[in-house]
Amino acid sequence: MSDLPVFGAGIWHFATYKDRYATEGYGPPVGLLEQIDKAGAVGDLAVVDLNWPFAGFDGTLDDVKAALERNNLRAVAITPEIYNRDYVKGSITNPDPAVRGQALKLLNEATELAKELGCDYVKLWFGQDGWDYPFQVDYHDVWKLAIDGLRELISPHPEIKFVIEYKPREPRNKIIFPNAARTLLGIQQVGLDNLGILLDFGHSMYGLETPADAAQLCIDAGRLFAIDVNDTLRKNDWDGVWQLDQFPFREDSVEAAKLAIRFLKALHGALDALDVDSLRAAQASHDALAAQRLDQDVLLSSMARTTESANA
Amino acid sequence: MSDLPVFGAGIWHFATYKDRYATEGYGPPVGLLEQIDKAGAVGDLAVVDLNWPFAGFDGTLDDVKAALERNNLRAVAITPEIYNRDYVKGSITNPDPAVRGQALKLLNEATELAKELGCDYVKLWFGQDGWDYPFQVDYHDVWKLAIDGLRELISPHPEIKFVIEYKPREPRNKIIFPNAARTLLGIQQVGLDNLGILLDFGHSMYGLETPADAAQLCIDAGRLFAIDVNDTLRKNDWDGVWQLDQFPFREDSVEAAKLAIRFLKALHGALDALDVDSLRAAQASHDALAAQRLDQDVLLSSMARTTESANA
Amino acid sequence: MSDLPVFGAGIWHFATYKDRYATEGYGPPVGLLEQIDKAGAVGDLAVVDLNWPFAGFDGTLDDVKAALERNNLRAVAITPEIYNRDYVKGSITNPDPAVRGQALKLLNEATELAKELGCDYVKLWFGQDGWDYPFQVDYHDVWKLAIDGLRELISPHPEIKFVIEYKPREPRNKIIFPNAARTLLGIQQVGLDNLGILLDFGHSMYGLETPADAAQLCIDAGRLFAIDVNDTLRKNDWDGVWQLDQFPFREDSVEAAKLAIRFLKALHGALDALDVDSLRAAQASHDALAAQRLDQDVLLSSMARTTESANA
Amino acid sequence: MSDLPVFGAGIWHFATYKDRYATEGYGPPVGLLEQIDKAGAVGDLAVVDLNWPFAGFDGTLDDVKAALERNNLRAVAITPEIYNRDYVKGSITNPDPAVRGQALKLLNEATELAKELGCDYVKLWFGQDGWDYPFQVDYHDVWKLAIDGLRELISPHPEIKFVIEYKPREPRNKIIFPNAARTLLGIQQVGLDNLGILLDFGHSMYGLETPADAAQLCIDAGRLFAIDVNDTLRKNDWDGVWQLDQFPFREDSVEAAKLAIRFLKALHGALDALDVDSLRAAQASHDALAAQRLDQDVLLSSMARTTESANA
Repeated sequence: MSDLPVFGAGIWHFATYKDRYATEGYGPPVGLLEQIDKAGAVGDLAVVDLNWPFAGFDGTLDDVKAALERNNLRAVAITPEIYNRDYVKGSITNPDPAVRGQALKLLNEATELAKELGCDYVKLWFGQDGWDYPFQVDYHDVWKLAIDGLRELISPHPEIKFVIEYKPREPRNKIIFPNAARTLLGIQQVGLDNLGILLDFGHSMYGLETPADAAQLCIDAGRLFAIDVNDTLRKNDWDGVWQLDQFPFREDSVEAAKLAIRFLKALHGALDALDVDSLRAAQASHDALAAQRLDQDVLLSSMARTTESANA
Repeated sequence: MSDLPVFGAGIWHFATYKDRYATEGYGPPVGLLEQIDKAGAVGDLAVVDLNWPFAGFDGTLDDVKAALERNNLRAVAITPEIYNRDYVKGSITNPDPAVRGQALKLLNEATELAKELGCDYVKLWFGQDGWDYPFQVDYHDVWKLAIDGLRELISPHPEIKFVIEYKPREPRNKIIFPNAARTLLGIQQVGLDNLGILLDFGHSMYGLETPADAAQLCIDAGRLFAIDVNDTLRKNDWDGVWQLDQFPFREDSVEAAKLAIRFLKALHGALDALDVDSLRAAQASHDALAAQRLDQDVLLSSMARTTESANA
Repeated sequence: MSDLPVFGAGIWHFATYKDRYATEGYGPPVGLLEQIDKAGAVGDLAVVDLNWPFAGFDGTLDDVKAALERNNLRAVAITPEIYNRDYVKGSITNPDPAVRGQALKLLNEATELAKELGCDYVKLWFGQDGWDYPFQVDYHDVWKLAIDGLRELISPHPEIKFVIEYKPREPRNKIIFPNAARTLLGIQQVGLDNLGILLDFGHSMYGLETPADAAQLCIDAGRLFAIDVNDTLRKNDWDGVWQLDQFPFREDSVEAAKLAIRFLKALHGALDALDVDSLRAAQASHDALAAQRLDQDVLLSSMARTTESANA
Repeated sequence: MSDLPVFGAGIWHFATYKDRYATEGYGPPVGLLEQIDKAGAVGDLAVVDLNWPFAGFDGTLDDVKAALERNNLRAVAITPEIYNRDYVKGSITNPDPAVRGQALKLLNEATELAKELGCDYVKLWFGQDGWDYPFQVDYHDVWKLAIDGLRELISPHPEIKFVIEYKPREPRNKIIFPNAARTLLGIQQVGLDNLGILLDFGHSMYGLETPADAAQLCIDAGRLFAIDVNDTLRKNDWDGVWQLDQFPFREDSVEAAKLAIRFLKALHGALDALDVDSLRAAQASHDALAAQRLDQDVLLSSMARTTESANA
């Protein structure tokens, strides 16, 4: 078997969540250091993505560093919280210039933290930047605010990468960066080399994309900076993190991460076993049946293979 | 114009909300009495649906009654909160008998309150009763718990109505009462006359129903106890409340209610103006074009008509 | 391994198709006898579902019987074509009584043919009975026509089963039997023992159901007469056909059937290997992670197991 | 009222259709000249979009010209049929070079016809270029074939415009030009000034876009060459055709076109009446309620206004 990939997770995987119904949360609060310890308890995680600010945390950055170190974890990214109550009508596209300024300040803090922690990138998820109703916004103006805001944020920081995680909707009915192609157009307009895309498999499906096609588009544009798992990555010699971005509302967070990584390892083994030449041949004639047969051969044997390998 | 219908709203319309992102809420908390005052400020609301327990409220029931009275509001229903943190794996279908017992206790309290306030019905929304993943539950057992639990709840209270508000999903991926037909089957199996359906227009659309068809099915079964707005109601001489069930996350709640009622009044006027005989004739031959023409004639003139009428 | 199930297919699997774009068809026409020979060529099929009329066929019924016999195939069902050009506004719910009469005549012919061929059931798919636009039909009247028409059709034929195959939409925007619960309500109203449901896995997903939950509902009502594949069937000792209902527009039809049956055999083997007691225990506590782990253990090893078994 | 826009329709609006079920068609065939006469009978149509080849037509081009002339119609576009049986695995992205060559030949014929008829553009709809199953194609290769094929087609014809009509799916599960942003990226890569976008309102909705936002994106890129109806067009001084692209399967085609144009006229009148300054002010603060109020004021009065205007 080829080397296993580096596995990672958003630290929120180990938090508890609120929604419109369980307003007190789906479980008791879990503090930041405890979240990091839970990430360590999974056993297969090497990196985590941290939010900024450290919500509800009154310790020091050294405490956080120590917690990461004792769990053999590295912070791969910082995700600034530009989608909480302060930004319900948007962060860098907010109609209020004061809120836009506040967002930029927070984003800059997050960027400095990312540098301090040696992160690979700052992750930008514009969940509240968009619209809910017809006629609510001027689309031209909102898009311009987004492009200008990104340029203002990123220009002073050429030494670290920034990634946009796109998503078609939720919490806004429409989000300004909804899919790979639209995000690439925006990145072109920003015109800076250190801005790329984080492709989330579920968001891509949600947006009616074929995730491997979206990834290929980003790779061909040189803009795939972080991603979830699929075959296209293997073909293109991807060596980045395989990152979990889950919200186990009702499940044990450590067990959920273990189960997910078990599945990713099975997928990884399936890619090892895949008859790549035959698949290329099938694809050259768009032969769905042959491709499915090859795919099923390895996918539907993947867990058996992993188990054998673990037992060997 | 025929008499206007009675307008109502869920009291949550006037609260603020949390979600996974804005965990502190989309706005500052609004207390129960303040919510009632906001409902009164709309001007066209006659009834409200109240949650039980009165979350975060440390006043007395008399305070609530006084607030209703000073705003000329009546409590049309009580909606027990069987979907918060205590019930994240279900209320009456929870795998834990102790939680099922706790849910029944809460439901009985809500029922007594509904009687005390002279409500028309207790509203049951089983948002957390269902499943998220394949293989997670035994479908037969979950359904049986639902039917048995409803019978145990309702049997001792023949003097007040209960309604099930169905919804296909959210927050669970699948909810046990997802559509009108399935809910009617459940009501049959419970076998009690005072259990019916509240039809929510949005939930019906979400579940791929034609809302007017779902309403007709419930009416023909004698089980439509509460509902949102559509033409089928007029045809069947509906004289119930036209009830708002909105969550204006980012908007002013009073203004949102006013705008909604303005729209409902326009719809009501459109029904007055509708050439019903011609519509029946078009429907008798399934003539979509003729039906659309008649519909557009009144709907796309409805606001003009309302305004003229207001000016007259 | 337990005995393999009986595999079947709709004979249309081996035809070619037309749509709005490729109006000449996605391939050259395939005659009825040739379709039967292709079904025989799959090797694992024991039964087929035939359409009536035999479109474009000028041979005799004896020719059809001979073709079935030489391919070791049995006709499990007749599916009358009540959804072609003659019925674009419906069959038994058509607004025109003459068309309704014509539909009933065709349905009775199909029923006699089913008896003649020793079929298990007549399959009713009401793809054109429904509506496309708001206000187009009177929902009460359409539903009554459906119930009355079914009773008129089925009453004289107590010696053979009829099944309704539900589907939420396509080709009509809304079809009168859209899901399991609504169809069960209709069956109740018809009031005849020999009318049941054929559950199509894809249609059930399309209608936002959990297919295993829909199957359980039908089983508990004693009305599941034919179905696609899932675990619920094993639990309830299902011994019916595992039936293909595919339309391989662009693929070789024989190869597509072989690939599908290969996959079904893997699923069947997975059910053999499943740790049922542990799954029941996980379901008793709604434990999604434990259930997923058990499921993945057998599903993601299923092809390896089948291959080993074939090699043994 | 401002001048009415030019109304147009795809000539297929006046044809009859086939699908998987009504394989003989939803009605008797309608010849090309008869389709043109029906378009003329609508009364408000000035332009039509014609398919090439003229399927089932054995007359001359002069016959077609005469039919257009006698109905006061102009051919605004030619839509080559690169999506019928010959192209079920794609036209310019077909895995077979011979089929790609055949497609280019057909596309060039269509382009010459468009010049001959004085059309505004050739419309390219790649309904069969895409994929249905995971792993079926190499996404990089398919995309490259699309870009190269477009360049080869368009380079020799700088004197006429070409438009891509995007659509996310149907008949393929995924189509290579699924939305505005992806299509704009492709147009950039082709690198020719006379290639733009035709935005279809329904396709845009189907692809989860906000149509007005998609239109604005195309306008800002200078690539919106043809479109359906919305407010963004008015704001940007659109003076192109308002084009129908309907398939009235079960309805009278002339009546359906009349009803659609009646609705478009009402919309047009609503735009005249819209308080644009107030809407801009509402949008500047992302005020959904104010925007809705203004929108409803004119939309829900639009038919009354049109009627008054017609009676005046």
